[in-house]
Amino acid sequence: MKALTINNINPHVKAAKYAVRGELAVKSEEYRARLARGEKGDLPFDTIIPANIGNPQQLDQKPLTFFRQVASLIENPLLLEHEDVLRNGLGYKQDVIDRARKLLKDVGSVGAYSQSQGSPAVREEVAKYIERRDGFPADPANIFLSAGASSGVNALLHIICENEKSGVLVPIPQYPLYTATLSVLNAQAVPYYLDESTHWGTSLEDIKAGYDKAVAEGIDVRAIVVINPGNPTGASLSSEDIHSVLRFAAEKNLVVMADEVYQTNVFSGKFISFKKALRELQQEEPGKYDELELASLHSISKGMVGECGHRGGYYEMVGFDPEVKAEIYKFVSIQLCAPVIGQCFVEMMVNPPKEGEPSYALYKEEHDGIYKSYHERAMALFEAFKKMEGVECASPAGSMYLFPTITLPEKAIQQAEKEGRKPDEFYTLRMLDATGVCTVPGSGFGQRDGTWHFRTTFLAPGTEWIGRIVEFHRKFMDEFR
Amino acid sequence: MKALTINNINPHVKAAKYAVRGELAVKSEEYRARLARGEKGDLPFDTIIPANIGNPQQLDQKPLTFFRQVASLIENPLLLEHEDVLRNGLGYKQDVIDRARKLLKDVGSVGAYSQSQGSPAVREEVAKYIERRDGFPADPANIFLSAGASSGVNALLHIICENEKSGVLVPIPQYPLYTATLSVLNAQAVPYYLDESTHWGTSLEDIKAGYDKAVAEGIDVRAIVVINPGNPTGASLSSEDIHSVLRFAAEKNLVVMADEVYQTNVFSGKFISFKKALRELQQEEPGKYDELELASLHSISKGMVGECGHRGGYYEMVGFDPEVKAEIYKFVSIQLCAPVIGQCFVEMMVNPPKEGEPSYALYKEEHDGIYKSYHERAMALFEAFKKMEGVECASPAGSMYLFPTITLPEKAIQQAEKEGRKPDEFYTLRMLDATGVCTVPGSGFGQRDGTWHFRTTFLAPGTEWIGRIVEFHRKFMDEFR
Repeated sequence: MKALTINNINPHVKAAKYAVRGELAVKSEEYRARLARGEKGDLPFDTIIPANIGNPQQLDQKPLTFFRQVASLIENPLLLEHEDVLRNGLGYKQDVIDRARKLLKDVGSVGAYSQSQGSPAVREEVAKYIERRDGFPADPANIFLSAGASSGVNALLHIICENEKSGVLVPIPQYPLYTATLSVLNAQAVPYYLDESTHWGTSLEDIKAGYDKAVAEGIDVRAIVVINPGNPTGASLSSEDIHSVLRFAAEKNLVVMADEVYQTNVFSGKFISFKKALRELQQEEPGKYDELELASLHSISKGMVGECGHRGGYYEMVGFDPEVKAEIYKFVSIQLCAPVIGQCFVEMMVNPPKEGEPSYALYKEEHDGIYKSYHERAMALFEAFKKMEGVECASPAGSMYLFPTITLPEKAIQQAEKEGRKPDEFYTLRMLDATGVCTVPGSGFGQRDGTWHFRTTFLAPGTEWIGRIVEFHRKFMDEFR
Repeated sequence: MKALTINNINPHVKAAKYAVRGELAVKSEEYRARLARGEKGDLPFDTIIPANIGNPQQLDQKPLTFFRQVASLIENPLLLEHEDVLRNGLGYKQDVIDRARKLLKDVGSVGAYSQSQGSPAVREEVAKYIERRDGFPADPANIFLSAGASSGVNALLHIICENEKSGVLVPIPQYPLYTATLSVLNAQAVPYYLDESTHWGTSLEDIKAGYDKAVAEGIDVRAIVVINPGNPTGASLSSEDIHSVLRFAAEKNLVVMADEVYQTNVFSGKFISFKKALRELQQEEPGKYDELELASLHSISKGMVGECGHRGGYYEMVGFDPEVKAEIYKFVSIQLCAPVIGQCFVEMMVNPPKEGEPSYALYKEEHDGIYKSYHERAMALFEAFKKMEGVECASPAGSMYLFPTITLPEKAIQQAEKEGRKPDEFYTLRMLDATGVCTVPGSGFGQRDGTWHFRTTFLAPGTEWIGRIVEFHRKFMDEFR
């Protein structure tokens, strides 16, 4: 007899759902392995396109040269004894060498644990970045470095949720890290719907509706999550939307969790941080927002940095009670610290080469090239969606995703039911089997009843794979017409 | 009004204790910052010795050259376009270059997320290592790569604990990761005492006593944790001890969690893995141990590698139900993957340069030098403890710690009580204030009632700091005589 079976393990882990790396992703990995072994067989494609997850370097995006040159020196500080060779033999610029020396002075060795909260010197740079970005000061003591934003979300939700009555307002659709973590914690995800008709903006009405319903059910709603720019929606929130969320949070005494990992992936308008919006409100209406608690998260995985595998990020905790912060500190201590080389990437993200510095020209060229190619790919995909029958999509505004609605034929819905699947699961599975393109069904993020979507990144190079989707969709619609 | 206060946050996080980075560690960091600012004032020491945590590279241990050379190339693959410069200008050997190419082929880019379970190629190398170590095969599908062993423990306990009645047998004294994580999970740590009189061996009698008491209290005991070599005890378990734990686990249907992160830090006898012992038992008594579930954990943070800051590790899951493994997979997916450069360090740890390869001589010299210096430092500290009044310590056998008993004068115990502290807390705080040496009181790990201990690493170079402890102790004893 096994001590553990599916029937006696932690039911809250069992209940958690995380479709981004769920059935489709596992199946696509199997296909990839088959193709790699030369066992194509009857697979109707030669390559797998992992459009299920924002993982740019898996899709051949080149890392930023400055970042990786510095990282190579931090990993092997003995190289710094050969500055001549670095400069003349390998083309390392002086600012690369200087930055490596600075970071090594700051962290000691990247092989040593840092302080639980992260290297003080890196946190100082983060605070300076936030100050430059927002025009309002930030305190390094409020910055926590984390292993990607995910581990920050995990830590924050661990503190926020007191018991099974504790609820957190979560946008629908949402990146499922939130619902999954709340499930593991046996706390309540309180859904509020984003408004597809306004390019997935936040609707105060819908937030209130979600909140009121939860309160009526006896849920102790404690926090509201906002993802801006949006994941999976690709939306970019207006200053009005942000202000109304902050006003609502202050009125209802809610912690605001602002997931701002896509803050530099913005194609229309300008990113406005929740921190800046909060400080402005505090100036406009003195006294009214002094108690508001805001945690805002950022990451090296997204933006033009795209260093997912290095697991780096930070969160700023504004307005939290010092005793509560001390408990977060203890909680993160149990896992010792965030990866230290990841902390160094955070430092470089918030403090990249500046104009006039030797590495600036190349950094700028690479950075702008990535930005431009994201925008172009997003537009190419968006144009393709416009031409697909029954597909509607908001124009690309931010993040790394598009999240089109699909109107599926009745016959397809019936066939899905026969196979025990949700219609969008059925559709995306068919897409994977036909094209090798792995996406995530809308049901993995949540969506209004009776609507169906899928999320795709626009990171894959070229347009050939977009053609595969278009052709698949045409055949799918014909098959079930 | 704050949404969160110390009185309404998650009570299970609040209840968790993690003394390794607790009050003393925080105070020592403050001292360090003061000294760094040149504000020594009346501090009676010039340096802080962080002997509270096994963090070798914080104490100036040089990383293994091969590992860091490879890491530098993986971080900046463009360097591989200059093999000539690497070889002739920087002294990189061919096997460094080859290993970097192999790892890059395996993981793609270290800036990309890997599979949730870790890179398949790295897991294959881990399986081969286990096979070489034990003489029994291992399956890469059973290997999970993790961010240090800590995140593996976190994942495993998350699955094992079903509800607040679920209990896990934990050695006392123990590394507090276990009790802290169980506390966060609102599950029960079921203590079993290690036997100080047999150099902190496991006593079957004490395990049974702990188990029976818990069962009598209605606890559903599901697993037993063994830390071998011991943390904080520095013990190294005999084959008899290991066999009796496995027999007991099989009899009571318990999952065995073998924390074997110090498997290469062994000074007396030979390390025997739980996996090997299990396979031997299975051969000796066919059928009897087939269902036993064993998870064994390893890490790049310890051993002679000491790459704590890179957060790498693995666990092997032997005998687990596939459905249970799938839930672990889902759980780790939510945090995406372990740091990929850390995964590469795991690969190098399990597959270091071999005899005949160009980097072998230097690797061997560095590796053996670290091993020897650990042993020497442990012995120097042990010899000092022998001479200290009221201090008794088992001879160094493994891991990175010594855990002496201290018999404190009655007056010291009274003074501690007056200050609202446990006597060993009082003692170690006094030690920090007098010497700058930061240790951890035995109460941070658990100990038998009425006994007092402290844990110190023996990683700090030189013996000057040992002299500080000796002098402090003499004065302390005089003061409270």
